[in-house]
Amino acid sequence: MTSRPPAEIGMPLVEVDTPALLVDLEALERNLRRLGDRARELGVRIRPHAKTHKSPTIARKQIALGAVGVCCQKVSEAEALVTGGIGDVLVSNEVVGRQKLERLAALGREARIGVCVDEPENVAAVGAAARAYGVVLDVLVEINVGANRCGVEPGEPALALAERVAGTSGLRLRGLQAYHGSAQHLRGYEERRAAIAAAALKAERTATLLKSRGLACEVVAGAGTGTYAFEAATGVYNELQAGSYVFMDADYAKNLAADGAPVREFEHALFVYATVMSKPNSERAVLDAGLKAVSVDSGMPRLVGREDAEFVRASDEHGVLRLKESNRPLAVGQKLRLIPGHCDPTVNLYDWYVGYRGERVEAISPIARGPGN
Amino acid sequence: MTSRPPAEIGMPLVEVDTPALLVDLEALERNLRRLGDRARELGVRIRPHAKTHKSPTIARKQIALGAVGVCCQKVSEAEALVTGGIGDVLVSNEVVGRQKLERLAALGREARIGVCVDEPENVAAVGAAARAYGVVLDVLVEINVGANRCGVEPGEPALALAERVAGTSGLRLRGLQAYHGSAQHLRGYEERRAAIAAAALKAERTATLLKSRGLACEVVAGAGTGTYAFEAATGVYNELQAGSYVFMDADYAKNLAADGAPVREFEHALFVYATVMSKPNSERAVLDAGLKAVSVDSGMPRLVGREDAEFVRASDEHGVLRLKESNRPLAVGQKLRLIPGHCDPTVNLYDWYVGYRGERVEAISPIARGPGN
Repeated sequence: MTSRPPAEIGMPLVEVDTPALLVDLEALERNLRRLGDRARELGVRIRPHAKTHKSPTIARKQIALGAVGVCCQKVSEAEALVTGGIGDVLVSNEVVGRQKLERLAALGREARIGVCVDEPENVAAVGAAARAYGVVLDVLVEINVGANRCGVEPGEPALALAERVAGTSGLRLRGLQAYHGSAQHLRGYEERRAAIAAAALKAERTATLLKSRGLACEVVAGAGTGTYAFEAATGVYNELQAGSYVFMDADYAKNLAADGAPVREFEHALFVYATVMSKPNSERAVLDAGLKAVSVDSGMPRLVGREDAEFVRASDEHGVLRLKESNRPLAVGQKLRLIPGHCDPTVNLYDWYVGYRGERVEAISPIARGPGN
Repeated sequence: MTSRPPAEIGMPLVEVDTPALLVDLEALERNLRRLGDRARELGVRIRPHAKTHKSPTIARKQIALGAVGVCCQKVSEAEALVTGGIGDVLVSNEVVGRQKLERLAALGREARIGVCVDEPENVAAVGAAARAYGVVLDVLVEINVGANRCGVEPGEPALALAERVAGTSGLRLRGLQAYHGSAQHLRGYEERRAAIAAAALKAERTATLLKSRGLACEVVAGAGTGTYAFEAATGVYNELQAGSYVFMDADYAKNLAADGAPVREFEHALFVYATVMSKPNSERAVLDAGLKAVSVDSGMPRLVGREDAEFVRASDEHGVLRLKESNRPLAVGQKLRLIPGHCDPTVNLYDWYVGYRGERVEAISPIARGPGN
């Protein structure tokens, strides 16, 4: 069930109850502008990934700064975005199952809706749903460019599927989904560049093949926060799907730039606010934020502004800090900000963003969280 | 925001939309009865931990089978339990912060409420809140019996804190919280037994000390699903807080019994229901359940009834299966059940339990999930 908001607008930040999911609004706004500006410089369209933020409020800001629409990963997110006023949403994923397909097609009456496919029976099912609701859905054929997750193989298998799409009433073939997920977190600049160069080659070969058969391939979509400049530079990708750039997380901050230093293009804008709830001795303190308040799949969160303490383990409702020698006090009741290891599944734990500017709460905004379907 | 229920009562199980959190009601009922029976045999009270299930519906069943009340880990859970008709709730944790203490004390007007403390300023704050609402709160002094998380040290430090509690108006000193969290998942029977024997010695020494000073120590509380029989056998612990036994998870199922075989006392009753959404080749399939549908902090989920497939990695919305050679088909659209690695944080991702009996949905029940405060 939806939990109560942990704050009120106008409240000093330090009064916010914990755990809470904080957004530094100025850092968010700078991140949003930065990607918008970069996309213009690079000459590519952006369709930011809303699976990170699950918020129509943020999606509207992205579109105001030049995005052509947003993408998301499932029907429940698309519903929340369309309800929140977004007119162009791509589900950058396969949608399987009767109920989900009905809901996807019904959304097509409210907004421009796209979806990915990677096998023929699903093409038929998506088409049937579209016809049942009298809509036309945009379709991208997802190809496996190296992530080895979903997606048909590039080249002939992708061509065969694209022909199916083109021949299915209710569907509008738009091009290729060619996202290389596992390249996003390769640490070295050159590693990421090489992975995307290989992916782009597969995408280009497939796009050329489709066009040679007279099939539409206006869109070659993909890219994430870790690699988007590489995709843009290939000249093959023309619609980029970076998502995590809005918030950044501790894991993305480990990626290295060309000079070997950590990438610092975007700022941390998302924090878990936590209270010291126990401090048994000088070497240990415990926060009220554990596995139910911060995702640890990509490592433990980092503390903001405390080099004298390290978040070393999480249990359901506790985060244990190892304290180093320090002359800075850390007392029960004190509140700290954490940078999540992985922003997307952390956001998914919360019902509310608490947006702040300076030291004052300025926005409380709902999150379309949930296991979704 | 609360997501829509993925099922309707009366629906065949196979129609349930995915991802969904399934409860095998017959397995749940057997688990509930089994712990109730065991507690009677062992001559101890049980106060099961509701942080696992976050459900007043299940808590009521636990009390009907002999539990003296339930415990939980935070105020938001206590509120949901009291609202759902539970009259005796212990927050087996420290509660820190103005808003949380006000809410805890206000709950004391509706039900018998207990809480743990581990430092003097918090004792004063809990007492002040209780007096402000004209209630008396039960208090356990939490001692560190080996988990090295919260808790004052046993012996003299615990005595000093207990004296504070006894001297604070609005508080009723009840005894000790002596939970050994990290012992729960020690794999070997003898390791777990030895860890609890050591914990019990500390608890006993402290209880004796309190009583020798004329302080109340009626309750020595602790224990979890992995060790409760050991605590019961010590004769020191008299109120056991096992929680995961209701559902069991893949991690608990790795604990070994005295004969070296995996413990099989309780059954898996909780499953994530997922759909095969992509099957790119004969070696790989992809489920629509990833990090936002199943917690992986204690390892990947296990598949039910499919030895020919292994859940090998999770991304936000995908679970990748490695397929072995098999003559059993696995097709896009097929639904599978997963046993979560860790039940508590998995439950926390969902708004609804879908309870089923045989192959029919029989109950849809809300979960008091959330980062809580």
